[in-house]
Amino acid sequence: MAGDTVITVVGNLTGDPELRFVASGAAVCNFTVASTARTFDRVKNEWVDGEALFLRCNLWRQQAENVAESVTRGSRVIVTGRLKQRSFQTKEGEKRTVVELEVDEIGPSLRYATAKINRANRGPGGTGQGAPADRIPLSP
Amino acid sequence: MAGDTVITVVGNLTGDPELRFVASGAAVCNFTVASTARTFDRVKNEWVDGEALFLRCNLWRQQAENVAESVTRGSRVIVTGRLKQRSFQTKEGEKRTVVELEVDEIGPSLRYATAKINRANRGPGGTGQGAPADRIPLSP
Amino acid sequence: MAGDTVITVVGNLTGDPELRFVASGAAVCNFTVASTARTFDRVKNEWVDGEALFLRCNLWRQQAENVAESVTRGSRVIVTGRLKQRSFQTKEGEKRTVVELEVDEIGPSLRYATAKINRANRGPGGTGQGAPADRIPLSP
Amino acid sequence: MAGDTVITVVGNLTGDPELRFVASGAAVCNFTVASTARTFDRVKNEWVDGEALFLRCNLWRQQAENVAESVTRGSRVIVTGRLKQRSFQTKEGEKRTVVELEVDEIGPSLRYATAKINRANRGPGGTGQGAPADRIPLSP
Repeated sequence: MAGDTVITVVGNLTGDPELRFVASGAAVCNFTVASTARTFDRVKNEWVDGEALFLRCNLWRQQAENVAESVTRGSRVIVTGRLKQRSFQTKEGEKRTVVELEVDEIGPSLRYATAKINRANRGPGGTGQGAPADRIPLSP
Repeated sequence: MAGDTVITVVGNLTGDPELRFVASGAAVCNFTVASTARTFDRVKNEWVDGEALFLRCNLWRQQAENVAESVTRGSRVIVTGRLKQRSFQTKEGEKRTVVELEVDEIGPSLRYATAKINRANRGPGGTGQGAPADRIPLSP
Repeated sequence: MAGDTVITVVGNLTGDPELRFVASGAAVCNFTVASTARTFDRVKNEWVDGEALFLRCNLWRQQAENVAESVTRGSRVIVTGRLKQRSFQTKEGEKRTVVELEVDEIGPSLRYATAKINRANRGPGGTGQGAPADRIPLSP
Repeated sequence: MAGDTVITVVGNLTGDPELRFVASGAAVCNFTVASTARTFDRVKNEWVDGEALFLRCNLWRQQAENVAESVTRGSRVIVTGRLKQRSFQTKEGEKRTVVELEVDEIGPSLRYATAKINRANRGPGGTGQGAPADRIPLSP
């Protein structure tokens, strides 16, 4: 990849993640993240919420399954990925374009919560996607 | 804040998070994240690891305590925050500068793991930092 | 500001920037940036263009005037700012939402071009926005 | 590339860009950008400067030459690229590591300046790097 528009969003899921499997057997997960920025209002001398940004997210394979098992409606998450535009036709034949987030990595935010992490283990063969512990560099 | 250098890093903790409390009673947590980019080697026709980037992270208050309870050496995390430079003198009187990440938000990555999330609840008074559920926008 | 969704886009202007002045006298400039990511196609053994991302940009005050004087349709630019969502009603009464970029800083890309820079100077009173040269830190 | 730590920095050059040519004939350009964030001080009721962040930048090929022709000490620029760590030994045999920015794209900021853009044209053969005008998508 080159020239991608990289973005990180922090916000809350507006609904439970939707998990489905495409014809090839690969899992895909969809959900929407609502992110609300706050601005300091100098007149009121307090922080005020801005209008929320809603971003539809797409996530594939093992991560999709892990997300569906871990987060629910209202969960606060950190999502990083690439902003993509997708065009489609409505039933009425109108052309519409939507902006979506192709997720590279996601995690539940620890701002207001703790998490108990369980390393994914999907059967004896594994998934071929896990980074073996001995490949993780642990010192500079 | 204005003009901050915002950055998101995905990587593994090189050690357990170190939690301590400053004189005011506020918690502060420090840890280092090692992030390794991969490049596609066209000659070998395979992905190869690049040199790791090690970033020292600072995190405050309730998040600091939540991180210390949730992640350990080797955990894969997503961290977003602001890049800062700090100058100090060595015992020998030499001036050194280090680049550090002032963390805004962190979460365990769900790429190779699932997580059981527990909403933090620190006593009857709470922390004053939790976003009440009814303030979360759940639909566009 | 806190919790903003910060984003950087590199791409080409799809038309000349549109400059206008609001009732208060402040300048506002609008334009659309088209950004195209490329992916390396291993089968073809070459880079291929992906679908373009089109982002509408809003820019205010002196920067708005500077952009209108400096770039035109087709210019390649780097834009950094905050992603915002805006809702509106069509003439037919339908509710629509668009995602836009509230620009913090923009510059013409030097990838395929050189630039002759002219420090803006808007009359004896100046704009009050220029950073005096002696405030720029020039050494660590 | 995958897993890169992408970053955008806005700041001023601390010196003129240094241009040199490596054995292969490729141009490389080095410079340092100083970026200063401001914080709103509620007690003073005004914006105050924070400590500056200094980032050493590396830039290659035609862009390196374009930068050396376009910007000078003090120029305000927008730089986007990937954060890298590099280890080296001092003359005294000490091991040091520095964090640097591998630049993908750079442009002079239009916040306090205008720019006259000149499309680079390096001889009859061209550089093979320019995007032909007809490849630029100009409408959604």
